[in-house]
Amino acid sequence: MKQPLSSNFVIGFLGAGQLARMSSLQAFRYGMQVAVFSDRPEDEPVQFMTPHSYSGSFDDVDSMLEFAKACDVITLENEFIDSAILSELQERSGTPIYPSPKSFSLIENKLIEKQTFEDAGIPVTPYAIVKTKEDLNDFGKKYGWPFLLKSSKGGYDGYGNETVKNLDQALEAFENLGGNLGRDILAEAFVDFTHELAVQVARNETGHVVYPCCETVQENHICVAVKSPAPVDESIQKRAQELAVKATEAIDATGIFAFEFFLTTSGDVLLNESAPRPHNSGHYTIEGCITSQFENHVRAVCGLPLGDPGLVKPAVAMINLLGTRKRDAQIEHAEKAVAESNGHLHFYGKLDSKVGRKMAHYTLLGDDLEEIYQRANEVTKEIEI
Amino acid sequence: MKQPLSSNFVIGFLGAGQLARMSSLQAFRYGMQVAVFSDRPEDEPVQFMTPHSYSGSFDDVDSMLEFAKACDVITLENEFIDSAILSELQERSGTPIYPSPKSFSLIENKLIEKQTFEDAGIPVTPYAIVKTKEDLNDFGKKYGWPFLLKSSKGGYDGYGNETVKNLDQALEAFENLGGNLGRDILAEAFVDFTHELAVQVARNETGHVVYPCCETVQENHICVAVKSPAPVDESIQKRAQELAVKATEAIDATGIFAFEFFLTTSGDVLLNESAPRPHNSGHYTIEGCITSQFENHVRAVCGLPLGDPGLVKPAVAMINLLGTRKRDAQIEHAEKAVAESNGHLHFYGKLDSKVGRKMAHYTLLGDDLEEIYQRANEVTKEIEI
Repeated sequence: MKQPLSSNFVIGFLGAGQLARMSSLQAFRYGMQVAVFSDRPEDEPVQFMTPHSYSGSFDDVDSMLEFAKACDVITLENEFIDSAILSELQERSGTPIYPSPKSFSLIENKLIEKQTFEDAGIPVTPYAIVKTKEDLNDFGKKYGWPFLLKSSKGGYDGYGNETVKNLDQALEAFENLGGNLGRDILAEAFVDFTHELAVQVARNETGHVVYPCCETVQENHICVAVKSPAPVDESIQKRAQELAVKATEAIDATGIFAFEFFLTTSGDVLLNESAPRPHNSGHYTIEGCITSQFENHVRAVCGLPLGDPGLVKPAVAMINLLGTRKRDAQIEHAEKAVAESNGHLHFYGKLDSKVGRKMAHYTLLGDDLEEIYQRANEVTKEIEI
Repeated sequence: MKQPLSSNFVIGFLGAGQLARMSSLQAFRYGMQVAVFSDRPEDEPVQFMTPHSYSGSFDDVDSMLEFAKACDVITLENEFIDSAILSELQERSGTPIYPSPKSFSLIENKLIEKQTFEDAGIPVTPYAIVKTKEDLNDFGKKYGWPFLLKSSKGGYDGYGNETVKNLDQALEAFENLGGNLGRDILAEAFVDFTHELAVQVARNETGHVVYPCCETVQENHICVAVKSPAPVDESIQKRAQELAVKATEAIDATGIFAFEFFLTTSGDVLLNESAPRPHNSGHYTIEGCITSQFENHVRAVCGLPLGDPGLVKPAVAMINLLGTRKRDAQIEHAEKAVAESNGHLHFYGKLDSKVGRKMAHYTLLGDDLEEIYQRANEVTKEIEI
C-alpha cells in the first residue's frame, strides 16, 4: 500500500452514509482524498464531500471495479456486501480491503459469528440453529417464549429479526425470514438484562486500542442514547473490554469494530452483536475521547499507529436525533443545544428526513454522567428534524 | 438567508487552501454542502472535498457569479479580493458575504486599518504614511533605523514588506513597493518586544466569543509555533483580549477574526496585524478549545449561536510543519507524532511540497506548557515533508 500520509492517497468507502461521512472527515484531516461507492439511487451524505463519487450494485464486482482501482485502500461502512464479493473485488482490483474479506466472512453470517466467538471462549446469548417445527418448539421449551428468530445473514431489505411468542408465530416468521428457502435461521433467547453495553476496539498490525465500555439506551430496539463510561461496576466494564479485545483477536481484525453486550440480571456479560465498522455506540468518541472511533478507523485501515481512546472528560452523553417527520431535512429549534458549552451537534447531510431516520446526533461532555445525560435530553427535546 | 441547519444549505469559500479546508470540515459536521472558488490553476485542498468546485479570477465579478449564486452564504479565506469586488458580487448574486465587504474595506488597506483601530482607541505600532524622500528620512530619525516599509494593500504577488536600514534602501524599497506608482506606502517602526501575541474573536448578531491569548513563535518572520495560553502575565492576556474585542466592534465584524500584538519591553500591548478569517495562530483551537476557530467561523457567518472558546486542557502547543523539499507532498517519519497521546496531526492535502510551504501542523495538549512545547518539537523534529 502507498504511504498513507501522502496527499494523493485515496481512501475508498463502500457505502456513503453517515459512518463513511464521519470517517471521511478524519481522512481529510490526514490530507487524504476520499472516494465513495454508493448503491443508492439518491444522493448520499458522502457524495457531497468528494468529486470521486461512484455508484452501482454491491452484488456486482464489475460495477465496483473502477471505484476500487481508484483507491489505495478500501473500507466498509455496512455489512451489505458478501465477503466473497469483497474477496473477488480485492483480488481483481489489487486494492487492499480492510476489514479483510476473511475477517468479514467470520461475522457476516450470524451462525458462524456466534460459533467463532464461542470457540474463542466468549459467552454469547443462547442460540440454536432451527430447521424444523420441532426445533422451534424445543427452543421455546428450553429458553421460554417469546424468543427471537434471526436470518443468519441479516440486514437485507427488511429481512432481519422477528420476535415470536408462540409456535404459530414462530412458523410464520421462519417462513418470512427465508427458512423454507434454505436460509439458515437462528433462534436466540431473550436475556434478562440490566444494561446494554458496547465497546469499540481498533486494531491493526501496530497493535490495538480499546475504548471505554459505554451503555446504549434503547427504545423499541432503537438506540436513542449512549452514556460513557457505562454506569456499571468497573469490573463489568473491564470484562466487556476484555471480551471485545478477545473477539477482535478471534477474527484477526483490522479496522474499528464495535461489540454490543448484555449485562444480565445475574451479572454475566454476554456478547450480543458485532459490527466491523464505526458504530452508533461510538459517535460520542468524536469529542468524548482523545482519538475518535472514526480517526482510529482511518488509522487502522491505513496502517498508522493507533491513537489514545481515553475519555477527555469524566462523563459523556450522546443523544441520537431521529427524523420527526417526512420532509426536506433540516434541524429546527437547535439553538439551545448549539449554544450549550461542551455540547456538539452533528448533522449528517441527508437530504430527506422521515420519522425515525438517523439524521443527527448530539454529544455533551461533563463531570457527572446523570447530570449531563439529563441536560443533553433537555436541550435537545424541542429539536425537530 | 436560508436556515443554515438544512442539508442543502451551501457555504461558499473564496479561496481553496487549508483555511477553507479546515472550515469545510466543520461545515460538513453541520450537514452543510461546501462550494469553493479557486483562483489557482492547480488543484487546491478544498477541491478534493466537494463536487461543487469553481475557478476563475478574484478580480472578475462575472467569473465568480455562478459560484456565488450557488451558495447560501459566502466567506473568505484570504485578503486577496478587493472589498469593492466583494460588494458588487454580493449585490449581483444576492448572496450575503461575511465578513461584510464594508467590514473588510476597513482593514484591507493597511493605512485605513491603522486609522480605524487608532480611532477606536487601540494602540498600534508607530507608523506614518510616507510620500517623499524627506518623509522617509524623518521617519528614520524619529523612530530609528531599520524600519519597515509596507505597501498599504499587502500580499499581492510578492508585494509586501521590506526592512530598510538606511535612506538608500528606503528609496529602493519605496519604488519596489509601488510608491512611485501612486500606491500608499506605510513606514512602520520596529518595536522592541518580548512576545508576539495573538487573539481570535468570533462575532455575529448573536454576540461574540474571545479565545485565549496565545503566543506566536516566529523565526525569520514565519510563525513556526503557537503556545496557548501565552506565557505572560494574566493582565497582559486580558489586555490583548480586550483590545481584540474592541477591534471587532470597530469594524462591526461578522465571522472569525485574528489579531496579532506585540508585547513591548515596556509592557505595552500594540496591535500589529489583523486578519478577517481563521488564522494560523488559531489552528491549536481545533483540539485545544471546546469550540475551534473553524467551527465558530462557520457558526458566525451562518448566524448560529457561538461556541465556548475555552481551553480543554491547561496548555496547548501547535507546531507548523513546513515543506522540507520540493516534491510530491507526503509526510515521512511522523510515527512518533501520530502515536503520541493527545498529539494531533493535520495534513492539508496540498499536492506539492516545497521548502517553507505550510503543509501541515501538529497540536499537543497537556498540563505544562513548556513541557508539551518541548515534547511537540521533539516528536516532530524528524518529520520530512
